[in-house]
Amino acid sequence: MVAAVRPRARVVVCLAKGMEVGTGRRMTEIIAEQLPAIPIVALTGPSHAEEVVRGVPTAVVAASDDRAAAERIQSLFSGETFRVYTSDDVVGVEVAAALKNIIAIAAGIADGLGYESADNLKGALLTRGLTEISRLGIRMGAKPETFAGLAGIGDLVTTCLSRHSRNRHVGEQIGRGRTLEETLAAMSMVAEGVNTTRAAVVLAQRLEVKMPIAEAVHRVLNGETHPREALTELMLRPLRSEMPLDAPA
Amino acid sequence: MVAAVRPRARVVVCLAKGMEVGTGRRMTEIIAEQLPAIPIVALTGPSHAEEVVRGVPTAVVAASDDRAAAERIQSLFSGETFRVYTSDDVVGVEVAAALKNIIAIAAGIADGLGYESADNLKGALLTRGLTEISRLGIRMGAKPETFAGLAGIGDLVTTCLSRHSRNRHVGEQIGRGRTLEETLAAMSMVAEGVNTTRAAVVLAQRLEVKMPIAEAVHRVLNGETHPREALTELMLRPLRSEMPLDAPA
Repeated sequence: MVAAVRPRARVVVCLAKGMEVGTGRRMTEIIAEQLPAIPIVALTGPSHAEEVVRGVPTAVVAASDDRAAAERIQSLFSGETFRVYTSDDVVGVEVAAALKNIIAIAAGIADGLGYESADNLKGALLTRGLTEISRLGIRMGAKPETFAGLAGIGDLVTTCLSRHSRNRHVGEQIGRGRTLEETLAAMSMVAEGVNTTRAAVVLAQRLEVKMPIAEAVHRVLNGETHPREALTELMLRPLRSEMPLDAPA
Repeated sequence: MVAAVRPRARVVVCLAKGMEVGTGRRMTEIIAEQLPAIPIVALTGPSHAEEVVRGVPTAVVAASDDRAAAERIQSLFSGETFRVYTSDDVVGVEVAAALKNIIAIAAGIADGLGYESADNLKGALLTRGLTEISRLGIRMGAKPETFAGLAGIGDLVTTCLSRHSRNRHVGEQIGRGRTLEETLAAMSMVAEGVNTTRAAVVLAQRLEVKMPIAEAVHRVLNGETHPREALTELMLRPLRSEMPLDAPA
């Protein structure tokens, strides 16, 4: 999506979320390679399109290395029910936007396990999930506070509780005992979280960051571990005090 | 609840959440006054009782100034589906546990406004809500990282998405146009969030901390503002970059 702000002052707004499998590159890195010398703004945050269209109040983040470009997109896109905040932490918002889909799959698995409700488990998964996403992001150069913002916790919450989320849906089907192949074959849309899980696990190993939830989701998606066993293993990690965001484990 | 660990080594486990109206005192402060010289542990986190009973995996935090007491409760209460982490931030976990109910009311109001779903709005409310809770907590001496943990974001997420939450229910009824009196008269259980909202607004004024969501919920509960207007006002706050956790506004 290219918004023509004024002649010769083009800005690219990146709405894509994910990570390149193998390289772990972010979406704006790939765009910058193809469109050098044009400022790029990543627009992220809790914003299911179905609700934006219906006028549900929505707040998002426009992140760019180019502050003027972020502020232009802020003033162009903001309206009474769609609010845009600016950020200079492109790495943080993109890592958060991509990796939240892994936690959405995990939350979906919890929904599919057959408990009447599993809100306690989902609360724990979101908390620990945000911690491991932050850990990877900070290692990649993100600012810690981004993960406490709309692009971090906000998008994570909305994605994990929404029936619109395709990634949560994939998890739920797998929690119910379907295979990944059966689940994806029955869907007409893409669930980016499946590829993002693979990309994140590779990246976490390369950067020596522990991501126990992503690794568990990865094993479940591959059919290596039963969903309930994977969650039990996560719960049975050694007892200790809660870890600060940047702790090694 | 008094757990007899061994003779003459009693520990009080505080499960109550809230703040004393008028004084803003925390539950363990009130207990300590009545039971001096006995170590007190606050047990908090995403743990709806209905799910704990059914064996849904649940992770909570045992917080105490007395590390040995927290570790005792950790080992006494932990089982395969109920995991206890320790913390020394009693102020943080108690502020988070009490004030999350204000945001649960706000999330319920969003649910009651008549949108088919309002997950974008709830994601934004939870994010900004956690920010203002953190701001008040830090001003009271809490550690910032507590709000990123199970007692903070974890409990907030679980409470806001659960149909078990009485506070979310109160908000939903009010979002649909009922008055607070009608709503409370129809309930058999207590919704602590109503009193906590009053206590928090008084405390925030005294400590000069801005809590726009708590103030909006307070006005709506008092019938001073229509729910939809209150949310619109929140959304129309001046545009800016996202705030760090400890920023003044």
